[in-house]
Amino acid sequence: MEEKVRTLSKLFANHFTAQLDTVRLRTGKITERLKIDHPEAAAVLPFLDTENILMVRQWRYAIARETLEIPAGKADPGEDLLTCARRELLEETGYHARHIIPIFSYHPAIGYSNEVIQIYAAAGLTRVSETQDVDEISRLEIVPLAQLQDLIRTGVISDGKTVIGVSLFRARQAHGEIPADFFA
Amino acid sequence: MEEKVRTLSKLFANHFTAQLDTVRLRTGKITERLKIDHPEAAAVLPFLDTENILMVRQWRYAIARETLEIPAGKADPGEDLLTCARRELLEETGYHARHIIPIFSYHPAIGYSNEVIQIYAAAGLTRVSETQDVDEISRLEIVPLAQLQDLIRTGVISDGKTVIGVSLFRARQAHGEIPADFFA
Repeated sequence: MEEKVRTLSKLFANHFTAQLDTVRLRTGKITERLKIDHPEAAAVLPFLDTENILMVRQWRYAIARETLEIPAGKADPGEDLLTCARRELLEETGYHARHIIPIFSYHPAIGYSNEVIQIYAAAGLTRVSETQDVDEISRLEIVPLAQLQDLIRTGVISDGKTVIGVSLFRARQAHGEIPADFFA
Repeated sequence: MEEKVRTLSKLFANHFTAQLDTVRLRTGKITERLKIDHPEAAAVLPFLDTENILMVRQWRYAIARETLEIPAGKADPGEDLLTCARRELLEETGYHARHIIPIFSYHPAIGYSNEVIQIYAAAGLTRVSETQDVDEISRLEIVPLAQLQDLIRTGVISDGKTVIGVSLFRARQAHGEIPADFFA
């Protein structure tokens, strides 16, 4: 294991902190580690029907460009991840899902962040709001799953959670792990 | 797009920075964004033969536990990603690869980091050093690819780059995109 010796500096954002620690490695050597303390997050792979995925186009400040992703967001304090997934789907797309199932939970940036993203798949979608979060989302796009897999393989889509959502949904489908009534 | 209004605070680590900015959203609203300026990184899915993957067990300070992952690391200043991948493979495992091919490049934490991880697959491995980086790596493990896919599906492995490396290698293989002489 690695033990903290002391925190050298710390940055407080609204929903998380970043801190630089001096740590003692298992060999005794001293080094520095950045650690981001991040709330858990949820993402949703939303099926409009058996073939088509509902996606969001949004500006990403950290990479200074617009991307095409599955809906996602951080959990509010005390909010469970399923509630978070439903809320983000509604806020970002205006849709409610009749069926929502867990697909995969993972660490996106294990080297410097404790963030966990729980990915769900959703189906039985109904539009319940005509508006979406215009601060965050430029527009909705409907992308056939086969085309989405091509956009990933050809490198057009580079967002980790979207890649993992599609890949693990397919893996679970191949293993018969998607309930028969999921698309009903 | 989103424009920076000003930087509120900044944290300098050895190889990257984290900063909290006030930004103006496309709607005119003002909010805060964390942005980590991170060097590019490389990861390697190393095949000992057609069936077995060479993996590393290491302590992850950000999540305070040991994990099983594919070898990976940040590029040194000026270092290209292929050189970085070969160096990390050698440092973390002691192996040199005769064949190394790009598999996928992605953004692991698009919401707050500009990090890009370029994943390679490697084969034709030869052990050229008996030691590996004992500061970072607890031990090497050889994991059959089929078992690795099970460890992912069952949630034992939660490291994003390992999941994407395996998933995209499989997708490229299914599309005939892995060169016939890769394992030769």
